[in-house]
Amino acid sequence: MRILVLGGDGYLGWPTAMRFSDRGHEVTVVDNFARRRWHLEQSTDSLTPITSLEDRIEVWHTVSGNLIEARIGCIEDAEFLDQVIAETLPETVIHYGEQPSAPYSMRSRKAAVETQQTNVIGTLNLLFSMRDRVPDAHLIKLGTMGEYGTPNIDIEEGFIEIEHNGRTDTLPFPKLPASLYHASKVHDSTNIHFATRVWGLRATDLNQGVVYGVETNESGLDPRLTTRFDYDETFGTVLNRFCVQAVVGHPLTVYGAGGQTRGYLNIKDTLRCVELAAENPAERGQYRVFNQFTEQFSVSELAELVKQCGEEAGHHVSIETFPNPRVELEHHYYNASNQKLLDLGLEPHPLGVELVQSVFGIVAENRDRIIQRAITPKTKWNPGELEGGALSVAQRT
Amino acid sequence: MRILVLGGDGYLGWPTAMRFSDRGHEVTVVDNFARRRWHLEQSTDSLTPITSLEDRIEVWHTVSGNLIEARIGCIEDAEFLDQVIAETLPETVIHYGEQPSAPYSMRSRKAAVETQQTNVIGTLNLLFSMRDRVPDAHLIKLGTMGEYGTPNIDIEEGFIEIEHNGRTDTLPFPKLPASLYHASKVHDSTNIHFATRVWGLRATDLNQGVVYGVETNESGLDPRLTTRFDYDETFGTVLNRFCVQAVVGHPLTVYGAGGQTRGYLNIKDTLRCVELAAENPAERGQYRVFNQFTEQFSVSELAELVKQCGEEAGHHVSIETFPNPRVELEHHYYNASNQKLLDLGLEPHPLGVELVQSVFGIVAENRDRIIQRAITPKTKWNPGELEGGALSVAQRT
Repeated sequence: MRILVLGGDGYLGWPTAMRFSDRGHEVTVVDNFARRRWHLEQSTDSLTPITSLEDRIEVWHTVSGNLIEARIGCIEDAEFLDQVIAETLPETVIHYGEQPSAPYSMRSRKAAVETQQTNVIGTLNLLFSMRDRVPDAHLIKLGTMGEYGTPNIDIEEGFIEIEHNGRTDTLPFPKLPASLYHASKVHDSTNIHFATRVWGLRATDLNQGVVYGVETNESGLDPRLTTRFDYDETFGTVLNRFCVQAVVGHPLTVYGAGGQTRGYLNIKDTLRCVELAAENPAERGQYRVFNQFTEQFSVSELAELVKQCGEEAGHHVSIETFPNPRVELEHHYYNASNQKLLDLGLEPHPLGVELVQSVFGIVAENRDRIIQRAITPKTKWNPGELEGGALSVAQRT
Repeated sequence: MRILVLGGDGYLGWPTAMRFSDRGHEVTVVDNFARRRWHLEQSTDSLTPITSLEDRIEVWHTVSGNLIEARIGCIEDAEFLDQVIAETLPETVIHYGEQPSAPYSMRSRKAAVETQQTNVIGTLNLLFSMRDRVPDAHLIKLGTMGEYGTPNIDIEEGFIEIEHNGRTDTLPFPKLPASLYHASKVHDSTNIHFATRVWGLRATDLNQGVVYGVETNESGLDPRLTTRFDYDETFGTVLNRFCVQAVVGHPLTVYGAGGQTRGYLNIKDTLRCVELAAENPAERGQYRVFNQFTEQFSVSELAELVKQCGEEAGHHVSIETFPNPRVELEHHYYNASNQKLLDLGLEPHPLGVELVQSVFGIVAENRDRIIQRAITPKTKWNPGELEGGALSVAQRT
């Protein structure tokens, strides 16, 4: 299969590229190194040392014998993207090429606009190029569970049957995005759904939970193939950050009451989910949504797990309630369906002591690279006078 | 009240500015003349001759004694917009400042990107400036009934109570936008809802139906105060276009089966609705949605009405089924609520023979300005090979 990976230099993009390349597919990656640039701008970096994309590709070739092609450019640049699509004629497009951080999007007007512009216009350009160049190709788009927010009903996979005044329809599941980044993903979903309805494209939207871990089968082949490990307040995800905190003796920073519950999954399961989506493409005109996570945890549960594992490993670990920089419900109902990927054959790697210990190992190995200043959250969802009050006033309506 | 009208040179913006100015409010209009430029680019124009914004403002001053202030610039230019907000400190912002045409948004990738960029980024800039400069001000945003599409259940006003697996929540009404323009309005709604939830802004989203007519109490005071009357395939709305066709002897162009049903309202009712929203502002943290239309009609019903009135006025009128350039259901259930504005006191001007005849009068008066070439639709929703088939394959899921 000819596969195009947008954002192929990223945390998930690079391991995805190797996975498909290993399986004998013809892989091209597109990246503009935005993630590396954003880190430069805030004087932070991946905990794991990552080599340049060209080096990675060379090492991968040496190790596996397989070639990965790279095209450097922005997908907001329609001419660039259209040329890539026209020349590579992908059968599957895996789209990670977006600004992926909620705190980044809430940092300033400029960062919010950059986020929505990069994500919405990039995806819109992609939809037009697919329509005009490869209308039969399958778009696999990385969405996020954060599009749904925390409604008081079970979260279904993209659509919900609604009975209302004696009539029934199956309609897009209502969205309550948790940040302007999450809002940009809602916009993408709306545009992609439209493109399937009106142009007959085929698309799978993977509403992913929070990913943890770094090791994949392919990255284990050579240390220079490792993917990035972000732990800073902007690009780091919570479990990775807690593990860094445990090792360096920083209290685990639980935001607010800690009852915030979300879906989580191992990076290995992410790769398998994307693979399952690619192997079982959507039909022409079909917009499928899979909720891509394997387990639900509250922030407090994760903190307790890391504390327990940390203490077993000889670290002194404390948990500290940190004033919540986000505006979000800290106690809420949360029950999301994730049946569709299981039905396709996903066999989850559940989160356990072993995974946490392996992350501790990575942290210990790179301990001298840790930038402590980057750990504490600085970006507030509501920097103004209304602090803390807005959500309780009116969650909706 | 200090009122800022974004898009204050437009079809609805200019009459709105006069209305509030007439009532003694301090009105500033912002415009970048995008509508005039788009007409220039496609060699079309308003049927009614419209004077420059500066002339309109001068005439209005002479006629009414009231001053309207103008600021020329783009709201996508954050610095410009922020300065306007900081200097005028509006208590109410009425936001018409968007690319308003569905066919325009479907014309090309470039036009689609322009539409979503103008609309989404402009509104995002506005939300940040309101948060930082006038957090207590009331945003009145013009949305569209086209955000909902044509679901098989009754359309409620912005939110719907959903009972699901024994639990209940009131959530945003699911959206099925009818074009990439309508999608941009869905994106706006998501962003505005977020800003009310997280920053405590107050906002009213007016999901407006199709507006017809040109005369308002204020524009009647001097012919140089008239608003624009668009009848071309891009910016014209269906009733206005049918009236032009009836007068010039062009068959009324019904797209497809003609069963497409939508909400409609008189321009006079638009002004009254906006006024009612301004007089009864949303609460802090509240995101209100009003469905702003007074009657529902199918396209065939409108064509029959115009045919009947036209023949009474001595025109020979035929109705022609035109291959539908849009991808939309041509027979569907449609029942939308519009109770909230009625509850606030709206007294609708129903559509009737009299209104159609008054539009005929305007057309006759400006008959020599009609550009026939502009009437026939050229923009197809799905220009590719899939023509016509996509929607029936998969309306959703």
